[in-house]
Amino acid sequence: MIIVIKKGSTDEVVNHVVEKIKSAGLAVHISKGKERTIIGAIGDEGLLASIPLQAMPGVEKVMPILKPYKLVSREFRSEDSVVEVDGLKIGDKQIQIIAGPCSVENQDSLTAAAVEVKAGGASILRGGAFKPRTSPYDFQGLGEEGLKYLREAKKATGLPIISELMDPRDLDLMCDYVDILQIGARNMQNFRLLKDVGRTKKPVLLKRGLSSTIKELLMSAEYIASQGNSQIILCERGIRTYETATRNTLDLSAIPILKEETHLPIFVDPSHAAGRWDLVAPLAKAAVAVGADGLMIEVHTDPENALCDGAQSLKPTKFSILMEELRRVALAIDRTI
Amino acid sequence: MIIVIKKGSTDEVVNHVVEKIKSAGLAVHISKGKERTIIGAIGDEGLLASIPLQAMPGVEKVMPILKPYKLVSREFRSEDSVVEVDGLKIGDKQIQIIAGPCSVENQDSLTAAAVEVKAGGASILRGGAFKPRTSPYDFQGLGEEGLKYLREAKKATGLPIISELMDPRDLDLMCDYVDILQIGARNMQNFRLLKDVGRTKKPVLLKRGLSSTIKELLMSAEYIASQGNSQIILCERGIRTYETATRNTLDLSAIPILKEETHLPIFVDPSHAAGRWDLVAPLAKAAVAVGADGLMIEVHTDPENALCDGAQSLKPTKFSILMEELRRVALAIDRTI
Amino acid sequence: MIIVIKKGSTDEVVNHVVEKIKSAGLAVHISKGKERTIIGAIGDEGLLASIPLQAMPGVEKVMPILKPYKLVSREFRSEDSVVEVDGLKIGDKQIQIIAGPCSVENQDSLTAAAVEVKAGGASILRGGAFKPRTSPYDFQGLGEEGLKYLREAKKATGLPIISELMDPRDLDLMCDYVDILQIGARNMQNFRLLKDVGRTKKPVLLKRGLSSTIKELLMSAEYIASQGNSQIILCERGIRTYETATRNTLDLSAIPILKEETHLPIFVDPSHAAGRWDLVAPLAKAAVAVGADGLMIEVHTDPENALCDGAQSLKPTKFSILMEELRRVALAIDRTI
Amino acid sequence: MIIVIKKGSTDEVVNHVVEKIKSAGLAVHISKGKERTIIGAIGDEGLLASIPLQAMPGVEKVMPILKPYKLVSREFRSEDSVVEVDGLKIGDKQIQIIAGPCSVENQDSLTAAAVEVKAGGASILRGGAFKPRTSPYDFQGLGEEGLKYLREAKKATGLPIISELMDPRDLDLMCDYVDILQIGARNMQNFRLLKDVGRTKKPVLLKRGLSSTIKELLMSAEYIASQGNSQIILCERGIRTYETATRNTLDLSAIPILKEETHLPIFVDPSHAAGRWDLVAPLAKAAVAVGADGLMIEVHTDPENALCDGAQSLKPTKFSILMEELRRVALAIDRTI
Repeated sequence: MIIVIKKGSTDEVVNHVVEKIKSAGLAVHISKGKERTIIGAIGDEGLLASIPLQAMPGVEKVMPILKPYKLVSREFRSEDSVVEVDGLKIGDKQIQIIAGPCSVENQDSLTAAAVEVKAGGASILRGGAFKPRTSPYDFQGLGEEGLKYLREAKKATGLPIISELMDPRDLDLMCDYVDILQIGARNMQNFRLLKDVGRTKKPVLLKRGLSSTIKELLMSAEYIASQGNSQIILCERGIRTYETATRNTLDLSAIPILKEETHLPIFVDPSHAAGRWDLVAPLAKAAVAVGADGLMIEVHTDPENALCDGAQSLKPTKFSILMEELRRVALAIDRTI
Repeated sequence: MIIVIKKGSTDEVVNHVVEKIKSAGLAVHISKGKERTIIGAIGDEGLLASIPLQAMPGVEKVMPILKPYKLVSREFRSEDSVVEVDGLKIGDKQIQIIAGPCSVENQDSLTAAAVEVKAGGASILRGGAFKPRTSPYDFQGLGEEGLKYLREAKKATGLPIISELMDPRDLDLMCDYVDILQIGARNMQNFRLLKDVGRTKKPVLLKRGLSSTIKELLMSAEYIASQGNSQIILCERGIRTYETATRNTLDLSAIPILKEETHLPIFVDPSHAAGRWDLVAPLAKAAVAVGADGLMIEVHTDPENALCDGAQSLKPTKFSILMEELRRVALAIDRTI
Repeated sequence: MIIVIKKGSTDEVVNHVVEKIKSAGLAVHISKGKERTIIGAIGDEGLLASIPLQAMPGVEKVMPILKPYKLVSREFRSEDSVVEVDGLKIGDKQIQIIAGPCSVENQDSLTAAAVEVKAGGASILRGGAFKPRTSPYDFQGLGEEGLKYLREAKKATGLPIISELMDPRDLDLMCDYVDILQIGARNMQNFRLLKDVGRTKKPVLLKRGLSSTIKELLMSAEYIASQGNSQIILCERGIRTYETATRNTLDLSAIPILKEETHLPIFVDPSHAAGRWDLVAPLAKAAVAVGADGLMIEVHTDPENALCDGAQSLKPTKFSILMEELRRVALAIDRTI
Repeated sequence: MIIVIKKGSTDEVVNHVVEKIKSAGLAVHISKGKERTIIGAIGDEGLLASIPLQAMPGVEKVMPILKPYKLVSREFRSEDSVVEVDGLKIGDKQIQIIAGPCSVENQDSLTAAAVEVKAGGASILRGGAFKPRTSPYDFQGLGEEGLKYLREAKKATGLPIISELMDPRDLDLMCDYVDILQIGARNMQNFRLLKDVGRTKKPVLLKRGLSSTIKELLMSAEYIASQGNSQIILCERGIRTYETATRNTLDLSAIPILKEETHLPIFVDPSHAAGRWDLVAPLAKAAVAVGADGLMIEVHTDPENALCDGAQSLKPTKFSILMEELRRVALAIDRTI
């Protein structure tokens, strides 16, 4: 860590900061320039986390050198991690497609959707049993009943299933039914939930929060990994910006940056980012071209009558056409779908 | 709700939208202009929530007319709500000050802080027992032990206490110890937690999420109110913007807007917004001047050795001086502290 | 335009608004619902632009129905516009690549870069003669001398040239030398400059401002078109968000939205958005996949010694490899480069 | 400047960076830690501005130590600057109020507004002769005619006048008529215009750009100062965020930060930030409480018929009441109005 001291500060001020750093167990290197005195703290920066260096008298700026995440970093593990689900390899050369309805509504429509997305080439089925909704008056999901429908749809198609976990009290239940636990954007910094999930052996898809930085996303993954579960898939799903023409701004630059910073597989959810089905196809192609390891796409057999997010759901025929297009883009960058 | 139809759309397209609206139980009014056909949906807009009108063929734009929150709206209740805690009136002419350390560390320092902030004029004591921390390697709070220290500090000073609830499994425990439950910014859209809190009789301070709109804040308050608990205090604590000179950008314009939209009392937390103790005083004065009903200020007897957020904590002497200044500003706008 | 009246407003209040609208020359339609009275203003919404309806007593909300841009809208012209420069068709099936150094430094390096980018497959040469720099102490460009070098590089390679116009006093000079005038992000709302450029016959590449909405970009294009020049190319180059891992967040969702809203060709500049050369390749591929009509890429023969933006410039060899990759992605979406 | 080298980099890589820094004329200090090698570049960081250190092989992070602005920094001049206009002291204990209509419309209404705002206590008259408008079809200002009206209004009231300069070709004209040149938010990074203004002796009010950082605002002020004009007043007027309930988010935290970073006086424009007249009063009071040296407030004798920004303009009576309130808040913080 580098600590820049304000111009004109006394030796006493510098020494006070130095003592603080030493008392935390780090070594110190002082460099007195013409303009500024600079203190280098050498050792484990985590030990300085609770020391309010920034607020100490004479301190102008505190600049960390090391990264605050370890287990999920590319530095810790240089090869790409591959998460295995029912024999499916996530994070490998093959791009995996998660598809299905926003929320589980009933057995028939779910199984129909599952059959359709499988035919189109999806390898994982999605469907929400517990739904985070902005309004208390909107449909909140079927709960365990929805999980049962998902299990039946899996039986019918062989597709592994993913569903969102919203509450720690549902964790055991969810683990009984689903193959991948999804942590939604709103829970990305629900640290207790992350720890709980970290204690299971289930693969986890962790969505980036609506206004979370890439660094914060990695810190949340670190929470899960720190408890022993390294089966983590990251997912970019759009961030909040001033632009109102789309629901969120899909941050595709995050993909190559994450590829550099972490060994974890990275997915993109173009449906939630855009909020409009007609933007899903171009954004999905861009996500493949930019290097995503997988996509999460909402598909509904009857979007106009969907109980949730119908506006952003593709019909199965449109999904099949899109899959054809995606295969061509994947081939152009030497990957497969 | 107003639905604008794309130029050149056929009657069939218009009729399809009209049928959809009617089937949800609303009446319809059609206005054919030279440039656009406009459909007015008359009745309860909530019934249209799950219909993806935006995605229907020929629909250019969907514009809600009514507000999605009811119980918390100024329209529902025109007089200001006053939340009572141990005889203290929150949301009345008197501005209430919550003060205390970021996290509870031990009995002595907490009680010392409580005595000091009471002497300075604070009327409620804050202190975190469960702490949301970005890094899994940082201090996570003392848990129930911390709650016990808070209870002792209350005994010593008479100050009612507020502490953050992070997990539904802690709700009963928290209710035993604290006078006001705090829902932190990261949990503002933890809808299950909001519902649980809504079922208690405890006053709740609900912090605005880091990138939540004013409308979303009110929708989250509506979640709590919809379960029967209307003892809600809102709290602005800074939003995430592109500016990096402060930790967050304190959105003081939110205060007069919230005053117009809702009857609930509104607090401001300048400490978390700024992240630097030297900005707390000017922002606190501005918050009073703009019309806040209360402030939440971090005070620590020894900020340099605080286990959490020392950089933004005031020492008791600075807090006392600030309180003197705040009293003068409050008088200038015909309020008291 | 739809004007929503506050609940409980008197007839007098409604009539006052109605009179205001009528006096501007629009017809009025009133709809009295149970919850709200709604006034529809029928006719040219532009006539209401200067009337502060929002601030009138009793007005809750004002919602425009029509789009504020006309000449550049897809509604005004349904086929794609093609801008022709020296026989080159911009906005057609062929994707055009603009490449070259950030700033013109000297004749030799510029011509060398021009030869290299042409060999790689670029069809237009870029190079700044007047440079907007954040610091007054940084290199500000060679001015007319730089324009002369560009002309020579064009002679040597046949590539048409584009360069940025910063000041209306340079307009005639620029028109003598360049084939396409570039309006930079910082000048997107320099309305006088837009008008001046609108009075020339030169093709214009208009970059989106750092925090401009898609609607504002189209309004700025409308400024140019309103003066008679419809040879306009739009360019997305990243927007400012809270994320600090990239210089700007490239908003690729803007491309399909612009394709729907306007007939103008749309380019993407991945170099400025990312600020790092290693992100240019993945973002360029994504931009092609999402539907851009062209790219603008910084290439320098010796980035380490560039006077400007070396960090984001590709070396010619990396550019050639990227062009090969882009050709494959273009083919995958049935376009060519 | 501190350069952090990636883990595992060879000595050759480190030496290459070191040579680059030395060749720019700075000294180098190398610190090899267990985790990272760190290079300290000692000397004038400006000399490194054009070297793309960030893009060099092996470089992980580049961290500037010194501030990029000099003349406007508090370090360069520790006492507050006072800008004098017609004997009026701006930046002193007395808070100065600029008031008047958004745009100059005709002599009578302007003089009437001037008389009113003077009676209310304003000390400077504002009025736009050249107006930046988002739409080419909106009123663009009266030009020189407007300036003449301003001169007459000054004669009638004695109030010095401020008006916005949009184009370098109007500079001489403007200097003949106005006392303070205003650079609007959209021109904050119109660097040529800043330089031109820097060569005059006129006081300049520089508004913060809509998405400009505090650092960028200071760099733009540095542009003006670097040409010899240090009569600069900064003005916060709201920044663009995701929140849509207000037109912009007024960033009042910027005031204490600017007070620390620079010696220049700082104003706040609550009218443009809010876009609604009913928010002007609470935000104006907050701006005074937070420490602003002055305010800029839009006042119109007949807002409903204003040609520009009527929605955010106060009527003279409301302005007078606000001035009374502001005087009380100013006294509460030991200043005067």
